[in-house]
Amino acid sequence: MPVESAAADRLWHNARLATLAADRPGLGAVEAAALAVKDGRIVYAGPEADLPAPLRDATETVDCQGRWITPGLIDCHTHLVHAGNRSREFELRLQGASYEEIARAGGGIVSSVEAMRAASEERLLEETLPRLDALLAEGVTTVEIKSGYGLDLASERKALRVARRLGTVRPVSVVTTFLGAHALPPEFKNDKAGYLATLVRDMLPALAAEGLADAVDGFCEGIAFSPDEIAHVFDAAKRFGLPVKLHADQLSNLQGGALAARYGALSADHLEYTDETGAAAMAAAGTVAVLLPGAFYFIRETKKPPVDLFRRHGTRMALATDNNPGTSPLTSLLLTMNMAATLFHMTVDECVAGVTREAARALGRLKDTGTLEAGKFADLAIWDIERPADLVYRMGFNPLHARIWRGQ
Amino acid sequence: MPVESAAADRLWHNARLATLAADRPGLGAVEAAALAVKDGRIVYAGPEADLPAPLRDATETVDCQGRWITPGLIDCHTHLVHAGNRSREFELRLQGASYEEIARAGGGIVSSVEAMRAASEERLLEETLPRLDALLAEGVTTVEIKSGYGLDLASERKALRVARRLGTVRPVSVVTTFLGAHALPPEFKNDKAGYLATLVRDMLPALAAEGLADAVDGFCEGIAFSPDEIAHVFDAAKRFGLPVKLHADQLSNLQGGALAARYGALSADHLEYTDETGAAAMAAAGTVAVLLPGAFYFIRETKKPPVDLFRRHGTRMALATDNNPGTSPLTSLLLTMNMAATLFHMTVDECVAGVTREAARALGRLKDTGTLEAGKFADLAIWDIERPADLVYRMGFNPLHARIWRGQ
Ligand SMILES: [Zn+2]
Ligand SMILES: [Zn+2]
Repeated sequence: MPVESAAADRLWHNARLATLAADRPGLGAVEAAALAVKDGRIVYAGPEADLPAPLRDATETVDCQGRWITPGLIDCHTHLVHAGNRSREFELRLQGASYEEIARAGGGIVSSVEAMRAASEERLLEETLPRLDALLAEGVTTVEIKSGYGLDLASERKALRVARRLGTVRPVSVVTTFLGAHALPPEFKNDKAGYLATLVRDMLPALAAEGLADAVDGFCEGIAFSPDEIAHVFDAAKRFGLPVKLHADQLSNLQGGALAARYGALSADHLEYTDETGAAAMAAAGTVAVLLPGAFYFIRETKKPPVDLFRRHGTRMALATDNNPGTSPLTSLLLTMNMAATLFHMTVDECVAGVTREAARALGRLKDTGTLEAGKFADLAIWDIERPADLVYRMGFNPLHARIWRGQ
Repeated sequence: MPVESAAADRLWHNARLATLAADRPGLGAVEAAALAVKDGRIVYAGPEADLPAPLRDATETVDCQGRWITPGLIDCHTHLVHAGNRSREFELRLQGASYEEIARAGGGIVSSVEAMRAASEERLLEETLPRLDALLAEGVTTVEIKSGYGLDLASERKALRVARRLGTVRPVSVVTTFLGAHALPPEFKNDKAGYLATLVRDMLPALAAEGLADAVDGFCEGIAFSPDEIAHVFDAAKRFGLPVKLHADQLSNLQGGALAARYGALSADHLEYTDETGAAAMAAAGTVAVLLPGAFYFIRETKKPPVDLFRRHGTRMALATDNNPGTSPLTSLLLTMNMAATLFHMTVDECVAGVTREAARALGRLKDTGTLEAGKFADLAIWDIERPADLVYRMGFNPLHARIWRGQ
């Protein structure tokens, strides 16, 4: 093999790694480590002393001065593309306004649907970029973005196109999810079956054909769609070969976790009311439990997700911001980790794995990202911290030193 | 008067102001507003249409394009100067370690005292600057900093000197507080009276003479100092003409709020367990209730401070980060506001006033800062927001456009 093909493009050395490699305990920490990259992929991540000789001749070598490197963070559940915000509704609620008064003042999800439909693609992109940039500033290299405020084909397409465009105007991997089964649009107010029919017949096939959706999601709840209705949507997703995921058991236990598992879903998300049946089914199916402490906190939920059950059954746990204007206007995965520790009593290792390895798993992208292992994309976050616990412990502080996406 | 003395140095126009002026309702909002500054002080803040003609000729004119201007934010309760962090202790606690195990692992306040005593002034400054910079990045123009991890004269002096130096290396007003009565130092382990004697006889007089303390604070709690012991410290502070404040009623009701009021304290802080007697006494004395939702959240307290009692009695409410390594590693006043709204059900107006006007009052600096009124320092925060509620509603997002300290 000629030397120029064996040498690395970039080499980070004198580093400490939290590899998150599954075959190492805890965070897979390696002290006195090096990480080498070639063609945007990791070719070595381990002890500097064991670095293969050819890789030492990198085009560019960076002395990390003992800094920690983790996988780039992954926000695996967001509604990042939305128009307008709901701070006025938030303010009214703090003043004691009723839901009726808020609705009269133009609040609620309907206001987000109206704003989404009215906004141009350019406007949506412009409004979303500061939120995306806030995530990137904390080391995010992959972000999932759901539709679900358009609720008609043109508007859902618009949202997903903007999501895809975000991945071209910023160095970040965007994973898109079609969430047509989010709420009932006003024009189908008294006709849920009619909306689901058009979702399955018109929206899903068109968006799948255009390659705009990497997965299909739904909101299974008394105030949204029933398990049977969700199953109908999931059946359609399967016909188009799209993986599914589910907003499940957030406000009540409709056995959403178990439903997701039955469909081999990538993830079931929220899960405050999930019971042992659901936790066991998810573990058996490899369906990741995506916990969303920002929404739990913001809506003042008191029922915590069953973290102990997930631990006992070996259900994988990921964490995400759930960024959305109504119940989680949160743009910080660092704060998300602190909330998971403080509110859900998750450990530091669970939190860090939850925004890296397990988040990648929840997106079906674990073969490409989420850990520091040879063969994966060189998606890295380099931190000015003494130990990984610092990422979870602090509140409102960003110790990111550098963010690397695909080696750059 | 010659023209050059009448003209303003800088003029911000086409702005929206949240003046926080006491004679206006709510946040004292003014649309289509202008704000003029001369010699570092506000000379006009009000409708642009009413701007006096001489002030229109400013040396520099800034078009705010409709942006909101609030008073610069004020963090009126921090322990910002400290050495080391306690993330290891945080991690152990999440793993279920007992207090004994944590103490054996070198945790607890004793570890912060040891680190403070061991650190050089340079090192302390270096460790504190990133925390201060995080506050400034969100528009903070005044910060209070307490000693209390030194617990001997040399170390308390060192901490307060570093606090003063922070105000020379960054454009920010620093207010210092001597918190010798924070905990018992190891060398006085079984001799609380002995420690208080040296505090009153040696430490306080020396620090007062050196002008290092703008106020005197104490921690009144079963695990710290009794009301009688605090009164002893307060009596000494009064002899040196220093205003007092108090960590009161955080974990139990020792009538700390009422004690603070009896001494005409600037503020009583925490106050989760304060009762109606305390709230009424504080209102009558003009003692501000400084609420610290970051500590409440971080230690998973469930007893909320009596916000309704404070409202009913007219007790002023301020908010602060309480930044400290043990119970509130928080460096965001924006997040503090969100926590006050979410956890304490405070309104948007109360939150914004709590980090501006009322925080200035809690520091005895209301005549100089905390509102946008002629005569005050031109300490401003200029925001990319639609309405002040955005500052409270979002989590982990910083919409600061510019920060102005004393007109610059
Ligand atoms: Zn969601
Ligand atoms: Zn404190």
